Amino acid sequence: MFSDAVLAIIITLLVLDLKPPQIGPGHLLRGLLEEWPAYLAYATSFLNLAAIWLAHRYVFERIRATSPPLNWANLAILFSSALVPFPTAVVARFLKAGNQGDIQTATALYALVGALMLISAWIFYQYVVRHPELIHAGGGKYLRQERAKALIGTALFLVGGLFGYISPWIAFALFLAVPLYTGITAPR
Amino acid sequence: MFSDAVLAIIITLLVLDLKPPQIGPGHLLRGLLEEWPAYLAYATSFLNLAAIWLAHRYVFERIRATSPPLNWANLAILFSSALVPFPTAVVARFLKAGNQGDIQTATALYALVGALMLISAWIFYQYVVRHPELIHAGGGKYLRQERAKALIGTALFLVGGLFGYISPWIAFALFLAVPLYTGITAPR
Amino acid sequence: MFSDAVLAIIITLLVLDLKPPQIGPGHLLRGLLEEWPAYLAYATSFLNLAAIWLAHRYVFERIRATSPPLNWANLAILFSSALVPFPTAVVARFLKAGNQGDIQTATALYALVGALMLISAWIFYQYVVRHPELIHAGGGKYLRQERAKALIGTALFLVGGLFGYISPWIAFALFLAVPLYTGITAPR
Amino acid sequence: MFSDAVLAIIITLLVLDLKPPQIGPGHLLRGLLEEWPAYLAYATSFLNLAAIWLAHRYVFERIRATSPPLNWANLAILFSSALVPFPTAVVARFLKAGNQGDIQTATALYALVGALMLISAWIFYQYVVRHPELIHAGGGKYLRQERAKALIGTALFLVGGLFGYISPWIAFALFLAVPLYTGITAPR
Repeated sequence: MFSDAVLAIIITLLVLDLKPPQIGPGHLLRGLLEEWPAYLAYATSFLNLAAIWLAHRYVFERIRATSPPLNWANLAILFSSALVPFPTAVVARFLKAGNQGDIQTATALYALVGALMLISAWIFYQYVVRHPELIHAGGGKYLRQERAKALIGTALFLVGGLFGYISPWIAFALFLAVPLYTGITAPR
Repeated sequence: MFSDAVLAIIITLLVLDLKPPQIGPGHLLRGLLEEWPAYLAYATSFLNLAAIWLAHRYVFERIRATSPPLNWANLAILFSSALVPFPTAVVARFLKAGNQGDIQTATALYALVGALMLISAWIFYQYVVRHPELIHAGGGKYLRQERAKALIGTALFLVGGLFGYISPWIAFALFLAVPLYTGITAPR
Repeated sequence: MFSDAVLAIIITLLVLDLKPPQIGPGHLLRGLLEEWPAYLAYATSFLNLAAIWLAHRYVFERIRATSPPLNWANLAILFSSALVPFPTAVVARFLKAGNQGDIQTATALYALVGALMLISAWIFYQYVVRHPELIHAGGGKYLRQERAKALIGTALFLVGGLFGYISPWIAFALFLAVPLYTGITAPR
Repeated sequence: MFSDAVLAIIITLLVLDLKPPQIGPGHLLRGLLEEWPAYLAYATSFLNLAAIWLAHRYVFERIRATSPPLNWANLAILFSSALVPFPTAVVARFLKAGNQGDIQTATALYALVGALMLISAWIFYQYVVRHPELIHAGGGKYLRQERAKALIGTALFLVGGLFGYISPWIAFALFLAVPLYTGITAPR
């Protein structure tokens, strides 16, 4: 419940970085269009957090007891997820400003927080897989699959961060690939 | 629960756009009155989100199982709802500033996000109606009614956006009509 | 649950108006002390919203079924509660700025929103008392008492708003009296 | 549920103080690194609030009934916790600005709010321990332990506030020690 609430709050706080453009009278349409990096960053973060939420929800259906280490591993996921609005705001601002070096730094920061979020998920799955007494019978296979997906997601974020030095477009295509991949492979 | 929390957060974040007026000493009353576009936008968004919440609540009383597509359709409703504070802030600012073209753009943006929210609701209802295995016995009639209402709401938002080119008053009367209509026709 | 979440969010959003003082180096302590109107407004709003939450919680323990009118009456409480951060921010800013007319306006605005919140509560209790089929056996006496308290609270806010023309101190003493009175008379 | 939601919101609102650095083009990396006081304050506050949440959760598993005084004691914890983003923002800003006196004031303010949060927890435990009719059989020993830990945490915050006059590093090491100590000694 607490986790659900935290993820719900983070996902909605993202909108606070979509601000009315600061432009002169008569230029609202152009001003809105120029904010496209903010929309890209918003959509990428929204989808990644939604995927984390869905995964989180499905995994807790398989867990029958918690323990302090499990709670702290869960808090690590929440800690890194709660950071997401920060790199989102940095990307929104510096992709628009357009300085090449800043775009690389902003993309790398985004990749770092994304990787942190997914490596935390990996640690969580790793812990649960090693403590079968905490999970419902038959949940082990699902959790091992999700553990693998968390590792792939981490890799996509890190590779995306490196590609940011060539083009932020490739980087964000990879960042968007993470939740789409998770969504398509989500179990019924 | 997650949906409930997201809608609760969006509805309360709206207040962050009601800010103390930036005016010289002794003019607070006039400053507060001049913020009427912010109050209009706030009330319209609050009522629309409240109607979405009530509809959301009633529909989930009729649903007995979820599936990944249903969760993603639900996330589409939340995604578009979560955007609402953005056009609300844009309308509040540019209706006050008073440039004719900007008012039309701001109203059209508001209509777009509103239509997106209701077309997402339509997709959700459409999916559920076509998957009767997910709903409680006897829920089909209600869901088909709500599907029709979501379509009417979408139309009202789009028509309102067009009327915004003539007058924002007519547009907002239509935007306000959506939740009032939903509220009056809500089932017991 | 939705109501609980909305009240929880409003109560925590209040802190966003406590901002680091904008002062030159070496004057942080003085800057913090000069923000006393913000602390007074914060504490008054926090206690009033906490009292609304407690009352809300106790009343829903006595309610066994909801209806659309009850849901809309509940939304009226949430609508007015959700506004509270706005007059709180206005009071914080204009009590500090110190213009006599602005202080009167800010206090009157605060009183208005407070009265709106309590008159909404009164409408809610009035509706429930008149629909005994919605409440658990034996809940009627409690709800009639709370209805009377909501009316007294409304009066205290309106009288406080008038006293604001003489002194904001008397006004805020009355605004603080509402939750303290509710707290002391809360049933076990 | 309400408490869980409030703590979840506070913990996520902390991120709003991590803002894109206001720097000229090409200096984003340096700008991000210079924000280290904001990261230190963020991590300290996040961990302290997470520890409060975990303790809160464990204690409510031992409580079988609430009472108005217990609710108000709980609100005192929430009231002081809800304040945390304020000293966090003050520390982030004035540790960066670098004036010695302001750093001392900011650290003392942080210590004060932290101590307030833990003394509230102590009052809560004290009340519960003295009202065994509110707790499940066998919960008394746990609650007495937690009461002692709340007192030690209060002391660490106060001592940290005093050490802030020598070095903010020692102060924050002590502030971070509170949740780490609580986490390590958390019962299974």
